[in-house]
Amino acid sequence: MGKIKVAINGFGTIGKRVADAVDAQDDMEVVGVTKTGPNFGCELAIKKGFPLYCTFDNKDRIEKFAEFGYECLGGLTDLLSISDIVVDCSPGKLGEENLEKYQSAGVKYIFQGGEKHDLTGLSYTSSANHKMNLNAQGTRVVSCNTTGLSRTLVPLYEYCGSLKVECTMIRRAADPGDSSKGPINAIKPVLKVPSHHGPDVMTVKPEIEINSLAVAVPTTIMHVHSIIADLPRDHGLTTEKIIQMWRSTPRVIVMHGSDNRIKTTAEVMELARDIGRKWGDLHEIFVWEDGVKLVGDRLYYFQAIHQESDVIPENVDCIRALMGIEEDWKKSVSKTDESINKYYSIS
Amino acid sequence: MGKIKVAINGFGTIGKRVADAVDAQDDMEVVGVTKTGPNFGCELAIKKGFPLYCTFDNKDRIEKFAEFGYECLGGLTDLLSISDIVVDCSPGKLGEENLEKYQSAGVKYIFQGGEKHDLTGLSYTSSANHKMNLNAQGTRVVSCNTTGLSRTLVPLYEYCGSLKVECTMIRRAADPGDSSKGPINAIKPVLKVPSHHGPDVMTVKPEIEINSLAVAVPTTIMHVHSIIADLPRDHGLTTEKIIQMWRSTPRVIVMHGSDNRIKTTAEVMELARDIGRKWGDLHEIFVWEDGVKLVGDRLYYFQAIHQESDVIPENVDCIRALMGIEEDWKKSVSKTDESINKYYSIS
Amino acid sequence: MGKIKVAINGFGTIGKRVADAVDAQDDMEVVGVTKTGPNFGCELAIKKGFPLYCTFDNKDRIEKFAEFGYECLGGLTDLLSISDIVVDCSPGKLGEENLEKYQSAGVKYIFQGGEKHDLTGLSYTSSANHKMNLNAQGTRVVSCNTTGLSRTLVPLYEYCGSLKVECTMIRRAADPGDSSKGPINAIKPVLKVPSHHGPDVMTVKPEIEINSLAVAVPTTIMHVHSIIADLPRDHGLTTEKIIQMWRSTPRVIVMHGSDNRIKTTAEVMELARDIGRKWGDLHEIFVWEDGVKLVGDRLYYFQAIHQESDVIPENVDCIRALMGIEEDWKKSVSKTDESINKYYSIS
Amino acid sequence: MGKIKVAINGFGTIGKRVADAVDAQDDMEVVGVTKTGPNFGCELAIKKGFPLYCTFDNKDRIEKFAEFGYECLGGLTDLLSISDIVVDCSPGKLGEENLEKYQSAGVKYIFQGGEKHDLTGLSYTSSANHKMNLNAQGTRVVSCNTTGLSRTLVPLYEYCGSLKVECTMIRRAADPGDSSKGPINAIKPVLKVPSHHGPDVMTVKPEIEINSLAVAVPTTIMHVHSIIADLPRDHGLTTEKIIQMWRSTPRVIVMHGSDNRIKTTAEVMELARDIGRKWGDLHEIFVWEDGVKLVGDRLYYFQAIHQESDVIPENVDCIRALMGIEEDWKKSVSKTDESINKYYSIS
Repeated sequence: MGKIKVAINGFGTIGKRVADAVDAQDDMEVVGVTKTGPNFGCELAIKKGFPLYCTFDNKDRIEKFAEFGYECLGGLTDLLSISDIVVDCSPGKLGEENLEKYQSAGVKYIFQGGEKHDLTGLSYTSSANHKMNLNAQGTRVVSCNTTGLSRTLVPLYEYCGSLKVECTMIRRAADPGDSSKGPINAIKPVLKVPSHHGPDVMTVKPEIEINSLAVAVPTTIMHVHSIIADLPRDHGLTTEKIIQMWRSTPRVIVMHGSDNRIKTTAEVMELARDIGRKWGDLHEIFVWEDGVKLVGDRLYYFQAIHQESDVIPENVDCIRALMGIEEDWKKSVSKTDESINKYYSIS
Repeated sequence: MGKIKVAINGFGTIGKRVADAVDAQDDMEVVGVTKTGPNFGCELAIKKGFPLYCTFDNKDRIEKFAEFGYECLGGLTDLLSISDIVVDCSPGKLGEENLEKYQSAGVKYIFQGGEKHDLTGLSYTSSANHKMNLNAQGTRVVSCNTTGLSRTLVPLYEYCGSLKVECTMIRRAADPGDSSKGPINAIKPVLKVPSHHGPDVMTVKPEIEINSLAVAVPTTIMHVHSIIADLPRDHGLTTEKIIQMWRSTPRVIVMHGSDNRIKTTAEVMELARDIGRKWGDLHEIFVWEDGVKLVGDRLYYFQAIHQESDVIPENVDCIRALMGIEEDWKKSVSKTDESINKYYSIS
Repeated sequence: MGKIKVAINGFGTIGKRVADAVDAQDDMEVVGVTKTGPNFGCELAIKKGFPLYCTFDNKDRIEKFAEFGYECLGGLTDLLSISDIVVDCSPGKLGEENLEKYQSAGVKYIFQGGEKHDLTGLSYTSSANHKMNLNAQGTRVVSCNTTGLSRTLVPLYEYCGSLKVECTMIRRAADPGDSSKGPINAIKPVLKVPSHHGPDVMTVKPEIEINSLAVAVPTTIMHVHSIIADLPRDHGLTTEKIIQMWRSTPRVIVMHGSDNRIKTTAEVMELARDIGRKWGDLHEIFVWEDGVKLVGDRLYYFQAIHQESDVIPENVDCIRALMGIEEDWKKSVSKTDESINKYYSIS
Repeated sequence: MGKIKVAINGFGTIGKRVADAVDAQDDMEVVGVTKTGPNFGCELAIKKGFPLYCTFDNKDRIEKFAEFGYECLGGLTDLLSISDIVVDCSPGKLGEENLEKYQSAGVKYIFQGGEKHDLTGLSYTSSANHKMNLNAQGTRVVSCNTTGLSRTLVPLYEYCGSLKVECTMIRRAADPGDSSKGPINAIKPVLKVPSHHGPDVMTVKPEIEINSLAVAVPTTIMHVHSIIADLPRDHGLTTEKIIQMWRSTPRVIVMHGSDNRIKTTAEVMELARDIGRKWGDLHEIFVWEDGVKLVGDRLYYFQAIHQESDVIPENVDCIRALMGIEEDWKKSVSKTDESINKYYSIS
């Protein structure tokens, strides 16, 4: 069997990263990426050797690329016609419109967490429900926050058999490359209470009871989750056992903050830059070891989420799930992560 | 009976505000404030007409003030000798040393929340335990965070008879006039889990079960509390009833964020500046009406705390408690607040 | 002669402050302030006792106020009919439209620096051109930045007879009560080079040659100007003489940063809060004494501008200029400032 | 001839980057890096395959590394004994002490801009004075700011024959991985006026007259320079010619801010992340094309400096200069940059 042919619809913050991660795998390839016009990101696509298509099928728009010296191979329909699956990384609110196009073209499709669960009726995160997504026609990779919560909560749930969770999300207000959003000096509570973030975990793991509150704060680099999880009685766990559990969980990094002087998200991102993935990304969820504490049946912990990148490897696994080529989520995760890390190993 | 003679030991962020608030009352007066030397704050004391003393009894240090044109009337001991009660607003870690001085001088004393409960064995917040502090020799006004929690939780507890609370504190990293502390672009979890903040409520209201987690974020103007409170079954409350309860609670402001465009702590502090108290202070705890939600027995809400000033009126009430001149906390609170507001009424 | 009857059209950030400052004077009074509708600022107007009018003459809009419990006395036209002069504090871009209304009503008018000089053909700042504005029908009080530059440059020019200036403006990105603007973590150059800020000084003092560059930075509390001024040869000045000149200049504060630990704009604003004007305002321009240095004929210095308030007293002086009741700008400035300071003297 | 054997003394922010850049070249190799103890950076050195040494010659300290599982090959003296040249990337204030060690060991040495020019009596930047540094025993690569100024000013000087410059430096307050420094919400002027930054350019190009003023602002990602350069009369330049000059200058990027939506340093750093160098570094100085303007003989422009990395390629060129293996600075620059870019080409 040949490689899976992957289209990336939208080559922005998420799209460029998914394309890079797909490119690092040996069982799939990027057959094209779309841009709305001949603007800045085209440079990057060309440099990487990704075939460039226009988000629209409009002939004028397609020809516009040539004026700026970029070869545009056609519209979205042309791209879909040579693809097995499309990863939708377009900005929000285009879901319904795009869904129709994907269905017409007969390709499989993956949406991102900016779309609602109802659009596809199915959601995905590697550790929670890979199997449920096997061979499905389309699905949605959940948001960075939901992915982060799944990473640490699913193994806990699997061990305990039940879990009741409250999470306060302290969210970055804007991405690092976005200079238009504030606030500069304020804390902004999300006044929809409870917020939608936590319950979204239930789209991939309905057995976990969870609610959340959210505030936005003046930082650009990571979200932090302050989590309280009520375990069932006779859970048999200790703080130390839970830490061990997460240490052996894929895509979770557990480190001692005080010993390693990783006091804040600034030092976590600096650690990520040392790892050397492109854009200084951190695909893993970072848990402060000395911030984990089990008091009776109630577990307290903090985790940090790199909002731009933690969902990237999930998209790769998700492609394998929909295409039905790897039933075991752990095998897919290993393959994805090893390929990505080898890809960047030179640095 | 004459006015209560109040000494303010330490005329900094808290001291200058307590002096102002005492000065606004008709049953007490500022007989002196202390400074460590002839530095900037002296100007303010002179302008306000507060007699100036030196924090130390050292003759050289006392004489130093004259060199800079400030009249210094003596050392701390001199001040204590003419005082009924001292409000200790010195920087942290001097508690034990100062306690001895106050006891030697035979004056009553009030410490601030920077000191531990153990120093005095007694703590104070107006709504929680005014009566317990009546005629005591000394006590501690709890911190801004603990005061804020007491304001909204105590009435809830009194209504329900039991309460189990979890609070995530999103704390300002530095005060507005402090330019040396960071972080500029990061979130910093407090890795002592649970943190000491929440449980401090139990020093004034031991019946409330409470734990807390805390993070510091890059803002200077307010703390925000994200709170989950479990009410007992058959509590008979509704979201609306709880909002009404807080509306009639002293020193709590409940406002609709969306309707009034009070989206963040920035707008809350702007509201405070309009009120017109000195330094733009907000003595009240701000609760976003549309952020309150009772789901079954679990109550969710957000509140904002002006860390520089919410404890100021509590210090005035506390003086009345220790001096035994007002048994009813609500009467003291009314008197304190009306006096302060009249004091600033011109603007 | 009775008091000058002043209308304030627009009761927002600037309007509420001008109203307060006018209210503090004995030769003028606020006969009314306008709001677009029964929203938050009405509370403040009522509390202060300022008659409330609607920005529009529309009957429905006027009646709307009553629904929310506010007494609205009429529309803008009604207000203008009982006024001698109107201070236009409406948001930008309404200048032309409003100008017509003021001219129809036959009242004198003062616009703010958000409007262009061309609108009125005349601009104002107390120290630069009070006399030129005497008895004029209308004028424009220049922006906070231009006002700040005039305060320190005009006396220097008057002494030297010529001056060539370059200024880099490091501007706050958003006001403290505005949480929607960024950037959170970036520096934003104003790419129109040179910027319009510096040359605006020439609308009040055409003899000063000046250019400027501007950047916006993630802070909310003050602008800082980094200034280079080339004096003519044989100027006869020294660093010390220049400092003395500014010490005796109204509305300029010169303080030693290192000695007084006023390291940044954070400490400058804290100093302002101690002064005790409402909203913690600082009407004066702050110059760091140890940041002033004359090297040959080139003068280097830094100054800080409280963008929300430095123009407030200028508006009061400007009213006197247009009404022709005080020819001497220094006398007006003294009267304005003493009245304001007495008004807040209780604190 | 074999490869130049390079020691890196200090494997922190600068050291790790220099090591990476040296490793990318074919005419030099990293023979060892030093750490003070078995702390976090060791991991990175091991992963990269750089031999690890201890900053000290102390036997206990050297053995300590093994306890944590790191192989430490000896002390600094051991490392120097196998090196041709050492790049000193230790924290400031150790210069004098280290200089003695390097001289005793008979190796050539390169200090960083944190040390003063007097330490070595010679300074370096590729475009300014490569030739002067040929075969020297030791030198100092100037700071990130001085390097940035040299990049754009030296070609301008070479064309014009004289240049008088004033620069206001708007500096980041802390590096992205440093969460302890503030200010959070303030602007901090450097009260030493003029500041030392600009004149440092004269250590590499004494013919350029330059002064500077500096302020620190609450951002972590880049410095911005606001520059005024007075050209001699009859310079024959235009805004467009100057832009063309910089376009053909190595390590300068000129881009149109408005067209490319690169409004602030946030977008500049995002562009750098897309380029794909490790840590998201930007070795080039970024000039906003639409912020360049020649008015008469006075040139105005803005440039942005990535403080963590612009000096990295200069260190590589500097090694070649001291070792006398490449006389032509442009050839060295080409070789350095091509090697680095090829090194990261996969991504």
